[in-house]
Amino acid sequence: MSPTETDTAELPRHLLGLEGVSAATINRILDEASAFRELVDGADKKTAALKGRTVINLFFEASTRTRTSFELAGKRLSADVINISASASSLQKGETWLDTVRTLEAMTPDALVIRHPDSGAPHLAARALSSHCAVINAGDGTHEHPTQALLDVLTIQHHKGPIEGLKVAIVGDVAHSRVARSQIHALHTLGAAEIRLIGPKTLIPAEAESALGVQVFADADAGLEGVDVIIMLRMQLERIRGAAVPSQREYFRLYGLDPVRVGRAADDVLVMHPGPMNRGVEIASEVADGPYSVILPQVTNGLAIRMAVLNLLAQERQQEPAQ
Amino acid sequence: MSPTETDTAELPRHLLGLEGVSAATINRILDEASAFRELVDGADKKTAALKGRTVINLFFEASTRTRTSFELAGKRLSADVINISASASSLQKGETWLDTVRTLEAMTPDALVIRHPDSGAPHLAARALSSHCAVINAGDGTHEHPTQALLDVLTIQHHKGPIEGLKVAIVGDVAHSRVARSQIHALHTLGAAEIRLIGPKTLIPAEAESALGVQVFADADAGLEGVDVIIMLRMQLERIRGAAVPSQREYFRLYGLDPVRVGRAADDVLVMHPGPMNRGVEIASEVADGPYSVILPQVTNGLAIRMAVLNLLAQERQQEPAQ
Amino acid sequence: MSPTETDTAELPRHLLGLEGVSAATINRILDEASAFRELVDGADKKTAALKGRTVINLFFEASTRTRTSFELAGKRLSADVINISASASSLQKGETWLDTVRTLEAMTPDALVIRHPDSGAPHLAARALSSHCAVINAGDGTHEHPTQALLDVLTIQHHKGPIEGLKVAIVGDVAHSRVARSQIHALHTLGAAEIRLIGPKTLIPAEAESALGVQVFADADAGLEGVDVIIMLRMQLERIRGAAVPSQREYFRLYGLDPVRVGRAADDVLVMHPGPMNRGVEIASEVADGPYSVILPQVTNGLAIRMAVLNLLAQERQQEPAQ
Repeated sequence: MSPTETDTAELPRHLLGLEGVSAATINRILDEASAFRELVDGADKKTAALKGRTVINLFFEASTRTRTSFELAGKRLSADVINISASASSLQKGETWLDTVRTLEAMTPDALVIRHPDSGAPHLAARALSSHCAVINAGDGTHEHPTQALLDVLTIQHHKGPIEGLKVAIVGDVAHSRVARSQIHALHTLGAAEIRLIGPKTLIPAEAESALGVQVFADADAGLEGVDVIIMLRMQLERIRGAAVPSQREYFRLYGLDPVRVGRAADDVLVMHPGPMNRGVEIASEVADGPYSVILPQVTNGLAIRMAVLNLLAQERQQEPAQ
Repeated sequence: MSPTETDTAELPRHLLGLEGVSAATINRILDEASAFRELVDGADKKTAALKGRTVINLFFEASTRTRTSFELAGKRLSADVINISASASSLQKGETWLDTVRTLEAMTPDALVIRHPDSGAPHLAARALSSHCAVINAGDGTHEHPTQALLDVLTIQHHKGPIEGLKVAIVGDVAHSRVARSQIHALHTLGAAEIRLIGPKTLIPAEAESALGVQVFADADAGLEGVDVIIMLRMQLERIRGAAVPSQREYFRLYGLDPVRVGRAADDVLVMHPGPMNRGVEIASEVADGPYSVILPQVTNGLAIRMAVLNLLAQERQQEPAQ
Repeated sequence: MSPTETDTAELPRHLLGLEGVSAATINRILDEASAFRELVDGADKKTAALKGRTVINLFFEASTRTRTSFELAGKRLSADVINISASASSLQKGETWLDTVRTLEAMTPDALVIRHPDSGAPHLAARALSSHCAVINAGDGTHEHPTQALLDVLTIQHHKGPIEGLKVAIVGDVAHSRVARSQIHALHTLGAAEIRLIGPKTLIPAEAESALGVQVFADADAGLEGVDVIIMLRMQLERIRGAAVPSQREYFRLYGLDPVRVGRAADDVLVMHPGPMNRGVEIASEVADGPYSVILPQVTNGLAIRMAVLNLLAQERQQEPAQ
């Protein structure tokens, strides 16, 4: 895709997920993020791009890294950022979700960043809005977490070049992972050669092969053979028993990423993890801290992706007629 | 009142309540808020008015909308805003209320916005201060919530013109409502023709008619007859039994605002609610979302009112000699 | 020490504690804080010194005053400030402390302000960082709380001139006090003539006299004789029984600071307390609010100290080559 095509790619009004989002749109966000990545690495990390604009972070689940990343992204763009967390929310007082959303909209924000335990909550919010405010999904139930997948793709591109033709393995509890779902959409759209899902059968969606166009492996060693990228998922410790795996130690033996298993992948494999990590459960410390790991660059790229998303969706608003 | 009179109206040092506040002062705040309302609706929503100044939000009760409204108001005036919530507070460590207040004052803020479960807490705070810091009551016990009443009055004015001569009904648990108390003071001062309180006798202060100069109705249909404005109050669900009303359904049947009941009011009646709403308890969804509802404009006006109050009280400080 | 010496004093990369920090370094921080103190007392309390820089407050213990003080200090220096509190933290999800720290570092902050219940947690963090980010200890376990001691020293200097030659009493639960530990280091380094620790034997470290070079008094009246400064420590109410003192009243009778006891000290004695105070337990209200008390100026000086520390450690970074 030429830069010109990218520049004129249509931007969605909201970023609710990556399913159905075009390669041109994803590339436009990635290009913008690459530019912000340079800003993040510089001395003065701030730009006046969103001065006078308001970003509301509405988080109904505990989160350190995603909330902090969006908050910092907004502040480095010079936006005013308001944090609202579940415990302080009117939801506890019996207000409906849409009344909460419309009330916040009436305070004239330019973007609502929403994390919610219910799949689809950000979509409901987006449909309820009557202003130009953009909704950004920061993780909804087991559905999507688009900025996480975008930062993963940005990280892969920085180290490997185009996604096209790459073999990527996603390892762990795919069934409950909104991160995995968004990654699969992004990797497909950008032309990954193979997407392999590795995990206990109980933790891989039954319809994955047909519906998502991926390959499923219950055997980790076979699944990792020759892949260019390994994305480890966080294992919810309370789900280990449900996975018909008797213990953390057993899970690590079967699916944990240790140096021997990394050796089955391509020579210059990338090891990724969205965090927070359970060391010794899904990943060995030697691997997390080892030469193939790009886990910390993922965090820095996350900041750049969120700056890009906030900036693009707010810029788009400026071009529309005021309401 | 001429603009000149308004401009020279004496401003209080603090905004603790609306009881005893003159019409000139209220009008000066409303005029300032109208100007800010235009800013809020514009593209760049920010002004440098309070740059270099500090606003501390001290909230000892859960609150999404009021805290967010004050925080955003402060930020759009370019003030530095600090949020302190009850759970993080030293009060848990046995510090007295006045020591908490004086400690925060020693950090040289320009305004302390206080929400507190005890009636009178902001007044105690204001008396304890030795600097020029302004105290703004964001709701104290069952006493007053002045900025809520000011935003209600601003909303009525925008849709109806002067308050003078209007008939206003306030419906619900008036006895426990600091919102109602502040509204009654403001409406009286601005010359409303009639203020009617509608609700179960157990939820209307016994001395209301004589002490507050209002009319009390236990029958909602009679009370709503011909009114220009209907202000619904939030019903604390746990108080329904105490109101000698057996259930939510029964409460709605007796006092809930449905389209038929709205029909008893004037043709161009305004329907208001301070939020958060209990749909189906005190108000029907058709009414909350219907053509007479100004519930969302109330929220936007709340932002303008809080910008006005913060700006006026800080400006006043600048004119006094520094301490 | 001449101003020139002070100006060229080597600054530490981090501020983890005051043990082993030179008088020149302490004086440089105090000088910087004195300058900021004037800013704090002025009309526009803000400077652009840290514009474009990021301060993360990472608090794993409840704190109103210290967190607020650092947040406001950062904001008045025009830094972007992010607050993270324990309850919202990934630590609850099983992430290791160093992964939390490294993840935050990957968001490219310029300073991490850390409060942690474990002694040494900020030191571990500082060693784990690979960037130029500064770590500032805002209180770790029973170890150190350096900015509290610096603000105490600044307050003494403002009222008494040089620390050299002064007699200072520290009264209360020294054994569990990170505040006392940092104070003892600072007072020693700056040449205090005598440092007296006063409290029940069970609450004074056994090795204090030999290891810390102080005098220990179990008798408060004897210990306060002729001192220039009295620093009261906060008494954890749950420790009173552990101190072999049967009740709060008994503790107050033996160690509480009342006007009679103040009379044993020098005529122009200073009375200090780090807050939050337990009035009637460790200090009488007449003394806390009396003419010798500088408890509120301590708070204001705390803001100046934190501005100085944040500013100096960030400035130092600018002079190093970028990573």
